[in-house]
Amino acid sequence: MSSVLLATRLLKRRLSQKVSVEEASRFRASFDGSKLSFMPAAVVRPRTRSDITTVLTMANRYGVPVTVRGGGTSLTGSGSPLRGGWVLDLSGWKRIRLDAEAGTVEAQAGVVVADLQRAVEAAGWFYPPDPASKQYSTVGGNIACNAGGMHGGKYGVTRDFVLALRGFLPTGEYVEWGSGTKKFAAGFNLRDLWIGSEGMLGVVTEATLKLIPQPAARWTLLTAFADEVTAFQAARALFARRIQPAICEFLDRASVTCAERATGKTVFPGQAGRAVILLELAGTAGELAETSPAVMEWARAHAVAYKEAGNRAEAEELWSVRRKCSGAMFELGDAKLNEDIVIPMRNYERFAAFLERLRASARLPIPTFGHLADGNLHVNIMYHAADRAEYQRAERTVGVLMREVVKLGGAISGEHGIGLAKSPFLRLQHTPAQIKAMKAVKAALDPNGILNPGKMFTPFKVWEHPRLKIKLPWDHK
Amino acid sequence: MSSVLLATRLLKRRLSQKVSVEEASRFRASFDGSKLSFMPAAVVRPRTRSDITTVLTMANRYGVPVTVRGGGTSLTGSGSPLRGGWVLDLSGWKRIRLDAEAGTVEAQAGVVVADLQRAVEAAGWFYPPDPASKQYSTVGGNIACNAGGMHGGKYGVTRDFVLALRGFLPTGEYVEWGSGTKKFAAGFNLRDLWIGSEGMLGVVTEATLKLIPQPAARWTLLTAFADEVTAFQAARALFARRIQPAICEFLDRASVTCAERATGKTVFPGQAGRAVILLELAGTAGELAETSPAVMEWARAHAVAYKEAGNRAEAEELWSVRRKCSGAMFELGDAKLNEDIVIPMRNYERFAAFLERLRASARLPIPTFGHLADGNLHVNIMYHAADRAEYQRAERTVGVLMREVVKLGGAISGEHGIGLAKSPFLRLQHTPAQIKAMKAVKAALDPNGILNPGKMFTPFKVWEHPRLKIKLPWDHK
Repeated sequence: MSSVLLATRLLKRRLSQKVSVEEASRFRASFDGSKLSFMPAAVVRPRTRSDITTVLTMANRYGVPVTVRGGGTSLTGSGSPLRGGWVLDLSGWKRIRLDAEAGTVEAQAGVVVADLQRAVEAAGWFYPPDPASKQYSTVGGNIACNAGGMHGGKYGVTRDFVLALRGFLPTGEYVEWGSGTKKFAAGFNLRDLWIGSEGMLGVVTEATLKLIPQPAARWTLLTAFADEVTAFQAARALFARRIQPAICEFLDRASVTCAERATGKTVFPGQAGRAVILLELAGTAGELAETSPAVMEWARAHAVAYKEAGNRAEAEELWSVRRKCSGAMFELGDAKLNEDIVIPMRNYERFAAFLERLRASARLPIPTFGHLADGNLHVNIMYHAADRAEYQRAERTVGVLMREVVKLGGAISGEHGIGLAKSPFLRLQHTPAQIKAMKAVKAALDPNGILNPGKMFTPFKVWEHPRLKIKLPWDHK
Repeated sequence: MSSVLLATRLLKRRLSQKVSVEEASRFRASFDGSKLSFMPAAVVRPRTRSDITTVLTMANRYGVPVTVRGGGTSLTGSGSPLRGGWVLDLSGWKRIRLDAEAGTVEAQAGVVVADLQRAVEAAGWFYPPDPASKQYSTVGGNIACNAGGMHGGKYGVTRDFVLALRGFLPTGEYVEWGSGTKKFAAGFNLRDLWIGSEGMLGVVTEATLKLIPQPAARWTLLTAFADEVTAFQAARALFARRIQPAICEFLDRASVTCAERATGKTVFPGQAGRAVILLELAGTAGELAETSPAVMEWARAHAVAYKEAGNRAEAEELWSVRRKCSGAMFELGDAKLNEDIVIPMRNYERFAAFLERLRASARLPIPTFGHLADGNLHVNIMYHAADRAEYQRAERTVGVLMREVVKLGGAISGEHGIGLAKSPFLRLQHTPAQIKAMKAVKAALDPNGILNPGKMFTPFKVWEHPRLKIKLPWDHK
């Protein structure tokens, strides 16, 4: 009997019904949003802190890999138990405790992000990070991947809202990093080292998050541009005026065209297939009354068409093109590689020119949309999964893209993380000295390498691993 | 000849006039704002990256301690070269490069924070962190100590504005953490591990900092309260309305009385010695016009007196009590222990009651002021340096204070850090498991322990070390 099987048997004796070895349960925990599947030996659903210490202590003793799981929505495979072992499922840890005076909230790892937002909004507070997965993804997973979303430019990402973390070292000891206060300067900052470490440096069970007052009002404007370059130039002109929209979503012509075909309506009558920027200002009514005229003036100077929402219903209507585009893209291919790269603003136009060349050389559609206020663009390389040549071209195209991103001073991931899917490109982003330092930290905190092994640093040949052909709740189409 | 002397001789041969072994130069680098002095063997003023690699490589080879220095304003001894060796003085690294479109600025480690603020404000941008030392302290030092200031509650601290760091591993390799963009999710976050690590995990030579648009307008209100408890209750009532002042400074009765005696004027005529809260709203004119009436309503309901500034000159007048109080305190003793503790808002009143008991048991004046929106209170234990019994009582009082702070869920430091002065209390804040993890990270990145050795983790008996009797440029009085 392998040591994992032996250890699993011992763990089940200790934690009984909290440990599931049933096949259906293991299969459900075998993959994340990447659909890369690896069967674990067991799924553990801890109820108490001491359960988690038991799991980690035994995992260290018997060398069992442990992969922590929340909503399982990661797009990179960071949540797939690559080396088997145990999946530590924290999705049942759902307590929320708001401090409506301090503007902070304690949330356990399994709290779904949209539920957290609703809970705090009911008391007039706002938690800005809003990954597209927020109806399914959890606070723990958002912390593990430093999730972003549409509010990154003005408000920041998950990291910017974490005050304290509670959880476990890979070796099983309970620890707390930071306090529930907005200032803390006592000791090394392992809180932020954990954030974005994709479950490889510790197990987060609870976080204290910072909130901001819910903006009293929003103002929405949809603008259209002849092409991507003029849209990018216009965005830069807006930012140069020091206007900080809460949201500044860009859709290229291909993305808009997909959405227009799917809905049978053009976004701006007589102006089919324009690149668009969707802007939302947020603040007090007085603030918006002062700022929106400057944005209208900007739109008149730069856009070929624009439409202001008079109320929330009209704003929802303007939003529809953005909401539709991801799903509508599947007319261009039944599969996509969604790369969440980041480009410094100063290089937006160079990147647009590069994307044109990339489309030509890849002979694949590459609709692109994203968050212009923080440079985070989603480059969607579309292909047909059954067409092996197309798939290989798509994979090669990712490599070309990543090299250009780094050349332009950007980041290979803005909000999804590395996991398995981006592991071949980590060395483009980081020098050997940087990777050496990261690995040294990993070895220092997880000497037996039990937490989420094989991720990030070991290049994973994603094209050699078939993805599951299943539909997940958050899949478009 | 000791290996340090030998190594220094070799280093001087390599870097010639960049290495100073002259006594006056070494003495000036032997202490920081704590006035705890330890003579280094040499002061190195590197000009290039390769100079720094040379210093660190030789330091590792010969086991020479290296302490990085900016403005030397640290109040904890984190900048004092405890174990001698080499002081790496980066105060000459002063380049500033603004990206007025992206709202980011690249600043080298030696840039003085107030100079940075002026440079970006000239272009309409705002860098909020504003430690009291900002006319002297540097970007590198502010990052090393995660400096805060008065804007922490609404805007955050240094950490919240750092996008990227460039510098050196303790072993001498050049590294870059993060990119100059607002999103980055590629690899472990050593950027934030460096921030607040007090020069023990790496050498920062340059940072890319995030800016926000300079608020168009400010509105200032000074309010007075019968005592500390009613002031705290009032502040909590304000925050519960989700009003976020840019600044919310508190001064207890003792602090106000000192300032009033020093100036010969009462803050509010006929209301001498009240506790005060100084509020500043910042935003667009429209925003302030909407928010200030709610604050006035709050003042009418809670304060015994209040005064609104009609213009910036009047605002400066209201500010004078805050600006005077730190210096004026020296009427109560010729020395102070300034403890920058943090208290969660929910425990403000309990802490006020504790402070009363502490004053009685210590038989020392303990004027207290601080930043109410983030819980960061400066507790000033005043004593006479020549009176050994008073000094020992002051030292013992710090211990009692720190234990209570942790009991109330707070932090032993909000913005000064640990260094030497707070090292005896680190174990109150952190469990053995937490300290074990921090030390493991230190050993992983700095295997020869050359960067700023002896700080933070080794309890330092500060009362056994005489402080220099000198006046520093930033000293009050």
